[in-house]
Amino acid sequence: MASDRLQCLQSSLELHKLDFLLVTHIPNIRYLTGFTGTAGVLAISGDRSVFITDGRYREQARHEVLGAKVVITRKPPLLAAADWLQSRARRQNKATVGIEPLHMSVSDRDRLSPALSGRFSIKNAAGLIEDMRLVKDKDEIALIRKAVLVGAELFNRLVGTIRPGVRETAIAAELEYAARKAGCDAMSFPTIIASGARSALPHGCASDQLIPRRGFVVCDFGVILTGYCSDMTRTLYVGRPDKLARNFYQAVRDAQLAGIEAVRPGVRVADVDRAARRGLKSAGLGRYFTHSTGHGVGLEIHEAPRIASGQTEILRPGMVITIEPGAYVPRKWGVRVEDMVVVTERGCEVLTPTTKELISI
Amino acid sequence: MASDRLQCLQSSLELHKLDFLLVTHIPNIRYLTGFTGTAGVLAISGDRSVFITDGRYREQARHEVLGAKVVITRKPPLLAAADWLQSRARRQNKATVGIEPLHMSVSDRDRLSPALSGRFSIKNAAGLIEDMRLVKDKDEIALIRKAVLVGAELFNRLVGTIRPGVRETAIAAELEYAARKAGCDAMSFPTIIASGARSALPHGCASDQLIPRRGFVVCDFGVILTGYCSDMTRTLYVGRPDKLARNFYQAVRDAQLAGIEAVRPGVRVADVDRAARRGLKSAGLGRYFTHSTGHGVGLEIHEAPRIASGQTEILRPGMVITIEPGAYVPRKWGVRVEDMVVVTERGCEVLTPTTKELISI
Repeated sequence: MASDRLQCLQSSLELHKLDFLLVTHIPNIRYLTGFTGTAGVLAISGDRSVFITDGRYREQARHEVLGAKVVITRKPPLLAAADWLQSRARRQNKATVGIEPLHMSVSDRDRLSPALSGRFSIKNAAGLIEDMRLVKDKDEIALIRKAVLVGAELFNRLVGTIRPGVRETAIAAELEYAARKAGCDAMSFPTIIASGARSALPHGCASDQLIPRRGFVVCDFGVILTGYCSDMTRTLYVGRPDKLARNFYQAVRDAQLAGIEAVRPGVRVADVDRAARRGLKSAGLGRYFTHSTGHGVGLEIHEAPRIASGQTEILRPGMVITIEPGAYVPRKWGVRVEDMVVVTERGCEVLTPTTKELISI
Repeated sequence: MASDRLQCLQSSLELHKLDFLLVTHIPNIRYLTGFTGTAGVLAISGDRSVFITDGRYREQARHEVLGAKVVITRKPPLLAAADWLQSRARRQNKATVGIEPLHMSVSDRDRLSPALSGRFSIKNAAGLIEDMRLVKDKDEIALIRKAVLVGAELFNRLVGTIRPGVRETAIAAELEYAARKAGCDAMSFPTIIASGARSALPHGCASDQLIPRRGFVVCDFGVILTGYCSDMTRTLYVGRPDKLARNFYQAVRDAQLAGIEAVRPGVRVADVDRAARRGLKSAGLGRYFTHSTGHGVGLEIHEAPRIASGQTEILRPGMVITIEPGAYVPRKWGVRVEDMVVVTERGCEVLTPTTKELISI
């Protein structure tokens, strides 16, 4: 629960040599307090927390926030947070305040310094909460599971809307409409529907191109349900795939299965990337796999860990990641297959229930 | 055109005592170069510009970017930009680099410093491009006009979907579906459909509440078309409005008309805010108007100027702003009416063509 997380963070401040922490990244605030709005600052000391926001969120903050006192301010919340730090540190000679350097602008940093007296020192405290968020708790996994299942149901409908002559954006429109009707908060990123030669673009957002009579269609999308993201990719074939197309697809699918096979506690994420990459290399397609193998998913669509070469993170039970190798032959075609998986005590569970057989339309 | 804007900025660097400028805010990069992707850094000197991005955007950047050389890098683009600065400043003893402090994180600032040799000094250069963007050119006004008209057509359809018992989110879903079908890039912000007592929430995003048999419904939404945003609000009444409701609505509408009346070149934005506010005060509703009167709109949904008390910006021809007073009686009801207007040589033109008579359903 959110308030347990906040207490846990409070009690870890001393370990990080911090007297205070200012949380400015909105997903981190949601994770710690349950607040679902989009503006505010959470100020934390070892034994107390205060969430500062503006009048628009009065009712919502009082209703949602657990574990922190809610303060409504007319000032910029960051400056009101500085006031709170000053009042809390009255008896201290020196106080160290951690900030989130990835989620504070240079402007805000420049405004914060003069708002604090000389006894404060400001310290970059990157990734404190992101580290907590790496491993999902039971509540979170349940929410992610729901989001993934809703996404998979939407995919089943999506298949029915793909046919030659239909615009990629029209397919995305149907999908997003169905997502809204299914109660989703929003899509977790701009929907990718990339058909024909556009399937060779790893980030081919739905365009006004018409689905061709023949060729691959990469469909990559996700929904946000109760704050948690889903992410899945399937590649379909319009027309009858010839042997070359079938082999190309199967090489990617096999690489994806090899990636999943490698996921278990104690394994370095770089080794999962290597397992997926090895599959494509052995099929002679290594150089067409131009991105990393996956990423963490949770309150944000892209979060730690990155499943990529050179990354040293070790998998632990409760991590939720994507496995999504792809191969893209410029101006010809591309295929990507993506599932979300949760690391378990002994291996992993694939959350995405959708078939990986090549669907042809 | 984008490339004229970039040249104009290049030639103004000296005036701002800058040898270089690093542009990190994506809408600013789009404004200056035409690039519509979502990652990259634009580095500018007095006579040269380079746009640095990653391999995903190779084709797109070469196709879209005007006036700057495109460089594809495997490094973080900010560090590749630092390399470019180093190579360009080889003959200089000292060089000043402007950054956008509102649009650079503390982390990136901390990475930039050590990537530049001691002869560089980094200077906050806030608002340089935002100041250019304040006044829209002919091309921009034409695009904004189109976005506003598409938004207004969508509103006409929206009216037909509102009836008692329908979920607010279902109405938003229909609207967003129609927007996608009409070729919009996306909505410009989360759609607000706030009915019954929820109409008293100025930011009441569509919820799972059902439209009641009787009461106001605030509909506030916008689309992004070819990069430019629209923004409009109309408040409808479900059932037959009694005299109290009609008077309440008219007070807000009259305040909105008074705000528009005040818009002309040479007027301070604070005076436009005051004109709208005076209307509600004289109807005894001043204390229920809890937000500012409007904001600039363009490539971003909220941009300069803010139409609010205390703001000193002077209106100039070509500025595009919203005029959107509202009145909100907590737990009872609320009304807001919003148009987009463009400041002309003699006054202003209301871009939103939709009626402001109270529509009852």
